[in-house]
Amino acid sequence: MRQAAGRLLAALAIVWLIAAAPPALAQDPLPSWNDTAPKKAIIAFVARVTKAGTPDFVPVPQRIATFDNDGTLWAEQPIYFQFAFAFDRVKLLSAGHPEWKNQEPFASLIDGNIENALAGGEEALVQVLAATHAGMTTESFDRIAREWIRTKRDARFKRPYATLVYQPMLELLNYLRANGFKTFIVSGGGVEFIRAFAEDAYGIPPEQVIGSSGRLKYQMRGDVPELLKLPAVDVVNDKDGKVVSIQKVIGRRPILAFGNSDGDLQMLEWTAAGKGARLALLVHHTDATREWAYDRASHIGQLDKALDLAVAKKWTVVDMKNDWNAIFPKQ
Amino acid sequence: MRQAAGRLLAALAIVWLIAAAPPALAQDPLPSWNDTAPKKAIIAFVARVTKAGTPDFVPVPQRIATFDNDGTLWAEQPIYFQFAFAFDRVKLLSAGHPEWKNQEPFASLIDGNIENALAGGEEALVQVLAATHAGMTTESFDRIAREWIRTKRDARFKRPYATLVYQPMLELLNYLRANGFKTFIVSGGGVEFIRAFAEDAYGIPPEQVIGSSGRLKYQMRGDVPELLKLPAVDVVNDKDGKVVSIQKVIGRRPILAFGNSDGDLQMLEWTAAGKGARLALLVHHTDATREWAYDRASHIGQLDKALDLAVAKKWTVVDMKNDWNAIFPKQ
Repeated sequence: MRQAAGRLLAALAIVWLIAAAPPALAQDPLPSWNDTAPKKAIIAFVARVTKAGTPDFVPVPQRIATFDNDGTLWAEQPIYFQFAFAFDRVKLLSAGHPEWKNQEPFASLIDGNIENALAGGEEALVQVLAATHAGMTTESFDRIAREWIRTKRDARFKRPYATLVYQPMLELLNYLRANGFKTFIVSGGGVEFIRAFAEDAYGIPPEQVIGSSGRLKYQMRGDVPELLKLPAVDVVNDKDGKVVSIQKVIGRRPILAFGNSDGDLQMLEWTAAGKGARLALLVHHTDATREWAYDRASHIGQLDKALDLAVAKKWTVVDMKNDWNAIFPKQ
Repeated sequence: MRQAAGRLLAALAIVWLIAAAPPALAQDPLPSWNDTAPKKAIIAFVARVTKAGTPDFVPVPQRIATFDNDGTLWAEQPIYFQFAFAFDRVKLLSAGHPEWKNQEPFASLIDGNIENALAGGEEALVQVLAATHAGMTTESFDRIAREWIRTKRDARFKRPYATLVYQPMLELLNYLRANGFKTFIVSGGGVEFIRAFAEDAYGIPPEQVIGSSGRLKYQMRGDVPELLKLPAVDVVNDKDGKVVSIQKVIGRRPILAFGNSDGDLQMLEWTAAGKGARLALLVHHTDATREWAYDRASHIGQLDKALDLAVAKKWTVVDMKNDWNAIFPKQ
């Protein structure tokens, strides 16, 4: 009897809540997007794939959306933030490496001459990554990266790197997830570096981050097992490699893919070539005032062939200057 | 006004539904498990990690559970089902390969002499896998594997392989998911073979299946991009490799891991060594009448060192004969 009375009271409380609620307003899910073509294309696409009983309907488990990270979800100029992190680490670690003073690219990095250091090309970068991203456990690296991204400020905007994410993309990620999409990062950046901030910054858990990675070694330190990061590249997650990783890790073709450079060309091509409704998008960095402007000639995030293909294939190109009314989240 | 009236009607309907509902019965979530130690350990563990405000509480995103597949979620005797699939494919493809009649291990497989074929060891197996798992697109392979698993019946139980899954494990997967866990397969088997049935059989989507894999090549066939399966091994997901894959793909240490063989030892060790409440479990195949009985001397699913470690570390060992009152789902 008391149980039944309790249920009745609970039910009456619900009546009150529902009857007293004001009618829901149709809120704009993408307020930082201007009402231009890209926003319309996104909203039309989501409406199309979520409407049950239509030929374009896509069941929830198949609503896979993949996003590049550098230049798509957060900024990437004047150098990839992960490089800035590595160069900072070199300076910090240099006290324990007196030999670096006479050894490139370390000597230049200690002097703060990044251009000189990068003149050593890929070989120099591999040396820097080996010195800063290996020889420690995965847990140690995570702690170090997490702290740097949260606290270190970039030179131009004077903001912590963790806050140099794009507000319109945060809204898009939320909008897609609210419509049953599973959002993945598919980045050329290091997977463990991205995981150190992706959950807080984007709401994307570690198992939905795909990136480049080095080899790992499982070993015992006394009784305690640990994973050691080795100075050897395992997966390079760029261009063709992004499609291969999508198949290996997700095992399902995305229905939406978003990139900003030629490194994303194959991911967009693979996504767009699937059956049924598909949406392929590119961020075009056109706003030197609020962010950066670069494309065909940039040494970072070069957008050249993919821009031509976007025109030919009618992919959606987001013009940052015209299509976004905000860039970074308010602080 | 009409809107308000509609909301009131809806609310009254909810009152009726709630007030009329009988009190919920506490249903047993694991009816195929006897009330022995393993079931008690599982239920106590889930209660512990899901109780907010206690030191052992684990937030939902961190409730990662990993399961071996062969011998843990479905049967694996007298040979791994994926081998049975490969051997069937050899017979089917032999019409197009007259040279196989004089070439081992193919000649023996065509004659149905599996023991003879396996005498060629690892090299023979690699040849069979190359002939049956490569040289086609990922989509073609998926279709072929899906059809075989769904329709082909095993020799002893005369059931389709898709139904040789363990009923108690299906209940456990559902129970964990109902308690906010994300369930992953971490198997030595081929990732694409497992994905061909894991979603239907276990409710585990492709992106939560981790397995061994071969190399893939992204290429264009005319205008159409495709992923070709190459005859080269990429990832061997066994022993140490399971821990490395967990870090690479999930990026988070499981709080529960379930295996059945020495190939799962490191996964259980890594899981159990994490901070806070952890549960490591092994299926011990002890039931020759209803399924199979094997452990230390088996050539498939050998359980030897992990059984010793389970005793030393107080891992939970499930004795199939005593702890499960059903093996396979009712047909």
